[in-house]
Amino acid sequence: MTQLADRPHSTVSAASVPSLAPSGVDVAWLGGYLLGQWADARRHSRALLVDPALQRQEGLSLAEQRQRVFEQLGLLVEKGVVHRAFPKSVGGEDDHGGNIASFEELVTADPSLQIKSGVQWGLFGAAVLHLGTERHHQRLLPDIMSLKVPGAFAMTETGHGSDVAAIGTTATYDPATDEFVLQTPFRAAWKDYLGNAAVHGTAAVVFAQLIVAGTNHGVHALYVPLRDESGFLPGIGGEDDGPKGGLNGIDNGRLHFDGVRVPRENLLNRYGDVDENGVYSSSIASPGRRFFTMIGTLVQGRVSLDGAATVASKLALDIAITYGSQRRQFVAGSPTDEEVILDYQRHQRRLLPRLATTYAMSFAHEKLLTAFDGVFSGAHATDADREDLETLAAALKPLSTWNALDILQEAREACGGAGFLAENRLTQLRADLDVYVTFEGDNTVLLQLVAKRLLTDYSRKFATADAGALAGFVAGQVGEAAVNRSGLRRLAQNVSDRGSIARSVGSVREEASQRQLLTDRVQTMVAALAGRLRPASKLAPAEAAALFNSNQNELIEAAKAHGELLQWEAFTDALAGIEHAGTREVLTWLRDLFGLSLIEKNLAWYLINGRLSAARATAITDYIDDRLLPRLRDQALPLVEAFGFTPELVRAPIASGAERERQDEAREYFRAQRESGTAPVREKSPKRR
Amino acid sequence: MTQLADRPHSTVSAASVPSLAPSGVDVAWLGGYLLGQWADARRHSRALLVDPALQRQEGLSLAEQRQRVFEQLGLLVEKGVVHRAFPKSVGGEDDHGGNIASFEELVTADPSLQIKSGVQWGLFGAAVLHLGTERHHQRLLPDIMSLKVPGAFAMTETGHGSDVAAIGTTATYDPATDEFVLQTPFRAAWKDYLGNAAVHGTAAVVFAQLIVAGTNHGVHALYVPLRDESGFLPGIGGEDDGPKGGLNGIDNGRLHFDGVRVPRENLLNRYGDVDENGVYSSSIASPGRRFFTMIGTLVQGRVSLDGAATVASKLALDIAITYGSQRRQFVAGSPTDEEVILDYQRHQRRLLPRLATTYAMSFAHEKLLTAFDGVFSGAHATDADREDLETLAAALKPLSTWNALDILQEAREACGGAGFLAENRLTQLRADLDVYVTFEGDNTVLLQLVAKRLLTDYSRKFATADAGALAGFVAGQVGEAAVNRSGLRRLAQNVSDRGSIARSVGSVREEASQRQLLTDRVQTMVAALAGRLRPASKLAPAEAAALFNSNQNELIEAAKAHGELLQWEAFTDALAGIEHAGTREVLTWLRDLFGLSLIEKNLAWYLINGRLSAARATAITDYIDDRLLPRLRDQALPLVEAFGFTPELVRAPIASGAERERQDEAREYFRAQRESGTAPVREKSPKRR
Repeated sequence: MTQLADRPHSTVSAASVPSLAPSGVDVAWLGGYLLGQWADARRHSRALLVDPALQRQEGLSLAEQRQRVFEQLGLLVEKGVVHRAFPKSVGGEDDHGGNIASFEELVTADPSLQIKSGVQWGLFGAAVLHLGTERHHQRLLPDIMSLKVPGAFAMTETGHGSDVAAIGTTATYDPATDEFVLQTPFRAAWKDYLGNAAVHGTAAVVFAQLIVAGTNHGVHALYVPLRDESGFLPGIGGEDDGPKGGLNGIDNGRLHFDGVRVPRENLLNRYGDVDENGVYSSSIASPGRRFFTMIGTLVQGRVSLDGAATVASKLALDIAITYGSQRRQFVAGSPTDEEVILDYQRHQRRLLPRLATTYAMSFAHEKLLTAFDGVFSGAHATDADREDLETLAAALKPLSTWNALDILQEAREACGGAGFLAENRLTQLRADLDVYVTFEGDNTVLLQLVAKRLLTDYSRKFATADAGALAGFVAGQVGEAAVNRSGLRRLAQNVSDRGSIARSVGSVREEASQRQLLTDRVQTMVAALAGRLRPASKLAPAEAAALFNSNQNELIEAAKAHGELLQWEAFTDALAGIEHAGTREVLTWLRDLFGLSLIEKNLAWYLINGRLSAARATAITDYIDDRLLPRLRDQALPLVEAFGFTPELVRAPIASGAERERQDEAREYFRAQRESGTAPVREKSPKRR
Repeated sequence: MTQLADRPHSTVSAASVPSLAPSGVDVAWLGGYLLGQWADARRHSRALLVDPALQRQEGLSLAEQRQRVFEQLGLLVEKGVVHRAFPKSVGGEDDHGGNIASFEELVTADPSLQIKSGVQWGLFGAAVLHLGTERHHQRLLPDIMSLKVPGAFAMTETGHGSDVAAIGTTATYDPATDEFVLQTPFRAAWKDYLGNAAVHGTAAVVFAQLIVAGTNHGVHALYVPLRDESGFLPGIGGEDDGPKGGLNGIDNGRLHFDGVRVPRENLLNRYGDVDENGVYSSSIASPGRRFFTMIGTLVQGRVSLDGAATVASKLALDIAITYGSQRRQFVAGSPTDEEVILDYQRHQRRLLPRLATTYAMSFAHEKLLTAFDGVFSGAHATDADREDLETLAAALKPLSTWNALDILQEAREACGGAGFLAENRLTQLRADLDVYVTFEGDNTVLLQLVAKRLLTDYSRKFATADAGALAGFVAGQVGEAAVNRSGLRRLAQNVSDRGSIARSVGSVREEASQRQLLTDRVQTMVAALAGRLRPASKLAPAEAAALFNSNQNELIEAAKAHGELLQWEAFTDALAGIEHAGTREVLTWLRDLFGLSLIEKNLAWYLINGRLSAARATAITDYIDDRLLPRLRDQALPLVEAFGFTPELVRAPIASGAERERQDEAREYFRAQRESGTAPVREKSPKRR
């Protein structure tokens, strides 16, 4: 991508880069730092997971996989590790952050174990906890916690994925019997994709439109028994979703209801209740706000997926970087005899920026988990805190789950055919994590929520501005567009950039410049979108929808840019907490690689908008290739060692040192053959005449 | 990404785009055109594959899957469809293109069936055919063709994937017994990942270093019996590779040899032989050329993977676009009641450029298959033809196999939770095709071969130039760099671009401009690389290797750019063969979407190198979003219908019309409720005071 004349005269190889950090990374310290505030919960979870009884087993049938994971949930109950989030009044610990941290680590044993636990305690149990009241807690939670009652979280319908407000199932109050009657009005309103619904669930929390005396009060949740020993209870039916692309330890299925009656008290009534006279009441007057408050408890799932995706990415890079550090394309007598595949520039390009991203995900997740714990513990639980938590989760979960798939895939390809073998785990982890990008809020939908929040914040700032500031803003917009169109800003930078590569990249690679470039992109995109969408308020609904739709792609791109900025800021904040000079230096390179890779990925935007000159843009790529990759290549192994996975947690034979043994044996064979003089002579090429 | 001021004043929605092709696509004609020269073979194959006995079955154990696919191979023999490529002398048809075309379609039934057939007849059988001579053909081919002898293609070793020349297995001629002795010298030299090796194979073609009288004549192939009824023959051992990330209908495994003796005649001796006096001879004097000639027969696998990846991509888009045309995020009474998810801009951005890519892959594959048939039929089989075929396959196979994974994944995500269910096929197809990117030549390695060829061609042109031309070339390089650095070229374009969006995109969207931009990028990248690598010839081997390594990433990027240009050219050539005006118009939009998407993907390069102004770069994105996507959205269904898959070949319930039925039923329910006056009233929000 670079022009000849822009490159340094001497080519920089890994060996000739002066080692700026002779001390390198303090692996033990960094390991603890990465585990974060809830390190003990994570260590405790990992210590349990070395037990093969909790790990995935190959070669089981669908029914066997489901049964095994169900029994593993029982083991978790025995170990007493699944109750952290429940109230002390029912034997829990009221420890929300620790609960999620411990739960995320389950992914190293088997993502099915993580998600099946999440269905039972994080969705079904948590709905009773957060949407129910004391009467439900005392009556229902003990059996949910002990797994005596396995349950489903019956929200999603075949016809509606992420759009919960529009579900079709109804729960109509019958004053004659003081009951709710559940009804599935049409096929598209069947509950679908529910874990525990196909086989194990004996109860469910069912979301339905609550209809009382002819008024629809919107979506509420009810506790509904599903099965007894002989199968579905009267009026309830269902189907098995059958085998899936992954997570086959979980029995997903469908449910439908025909005149199913439950007592009035089964309404989970924290945010809306019906009294014995059949009168509806709610502590939240606005139906919209009430709905979002109830749905807000779902944020827990998104937080834990963000963390689980980060754990899986760490595991993938541990495997691929360990293998890449041992694997040789060994050619007897070649001058590159000592090279391993991680010495190849392309291999570094494939793995090291993803290592930087994984560190960014890890530090960003720690911030998210802290915010989550603050809200759910009640320590920082204002409406604004909740809204910030939801936006943060909606911004980070899409990035980390997509990144995890990308990282798992690149790791698998970087391990070649060996990466495709099930024993090396990468393909199975990828298959299991696949659905993380569309469940608990489809990534594309979540990013639109983030974009909406960005626009709202922007227009709030805007609404309080006086007329003069408004005019100034509009003028600023026009002025900026004019500058961009004439290329004046870019030209000015061109002139000042005519120096050496070092000088031109110098200012870009500094922390403040990275921050400015990343922040500026988000702000500029949001401002441009706000400007384009402003006419919407004056348009008819269909035209306004069309205007939004014609900007949908850029709305989503702006939300992604915002999430990436948050990841970069979390990484940068984390640097400040590192005292050890070697560790700080290496992690600063890694942060630079993350930040500059983001800028490189969006280079066209920076060029078009006059934020970078062509020379500077080129210098960024050169700086990554010629400086950051060679430096970080030598630190790649310590950086994955700091993830702290023991061999029992990694379990991939190719990352076990077996490859190095094979390589050493082959080299020893050829060495001995050469020394003994028995090596066959290579047939010579005929001389050219 | 666009600036406010650059956008047209009125927002263009799908409805307001004037319909330029009232006649649209002639689906039937286009379907035949896409099937190409070997349409009959493809149709014949598809007609067979509607039989469930040949299709993948869910829920089988590993052993059952392997057995089922093995038996399916027997069915293919019965149907007489696997012998097309074999010589007429043994009952075949000498039809190489038709054979591959027919074989590629197997992916619609089950990729395991495709690959297991490929192992038996395309690798094992083809090695006997192409590397053996008449004595082998008559003796061995009939039992291979009939599946009486299932066999492995024992080339890859644990220690060596794509670097075949460096394998460790030896075959040493023993004059005392007139036999070859096969030996696996160390663990890394075990043959690995071989289909048919774990269970079914009773023989193998084994690649080994051929050692005769102390001279190593390089890699040759030998026919080696493996098993009889009681298991491995003496001296042979092996292991099962176990479950894999996909393709579990195939029994991949490992083999090793300890003093295994085969008669001298078992050497597949077309390109190298040992006579009864123990004297080696070859029709190809250079060991290097001999090796590449032998390995050249492997191109067949790459050709067929390119085609199979294209078939799978078509299937994925058929499913996702059909579903996207039926699925509504239905909200009773909303103004967007009629909208389906394919109406969303982001959904179009996700699927339509991939549809364009799939058409490009299809037309490019047809060229590749034609070149392959020319070489293998002998009609166009000069050394240059062979070299061109190998380069073309090495350029296209990486792009199409990576694209297939990307397309299958995007299709799965675009179908949400339904896309994750096994019954809808997308996850299984993706899992099976995963290994296509690293087997039959790792994509990264193949692209380096392409880059090498590009550099060789470049330097050949260079070597014949006289000194004056050389000087001129260097001056040209410097001049170009100077222009880029000062931004003069970009500036000039800026000035002329100050007009409307239509004027500025006008010249870029023309066919000639797309060609120039895409071609220019390849040429400029290759020229820059050649310049940077020129010093290598004067360096010590280790330093030369380091210089190459520091340019490896860009070498691979240049090869990709070359492959994409070839795809674009194939698409463009295909336009010339379309007479129907509506079809040609729609396919021209689709080609434009492909070409402009390639340019958009590499926009930073065009900006940095002064090939596009910021205004033009922005106009490309606007043209895609505001013109091409809305136009093509309305043609998306006919464009996937033209792939010609019947419901028995698609088999995904979500693409069956079931979604539309569910949607219609739900709408009818709400309509009837409204009309009967029984609809519950929505709870009103409290008035703000």
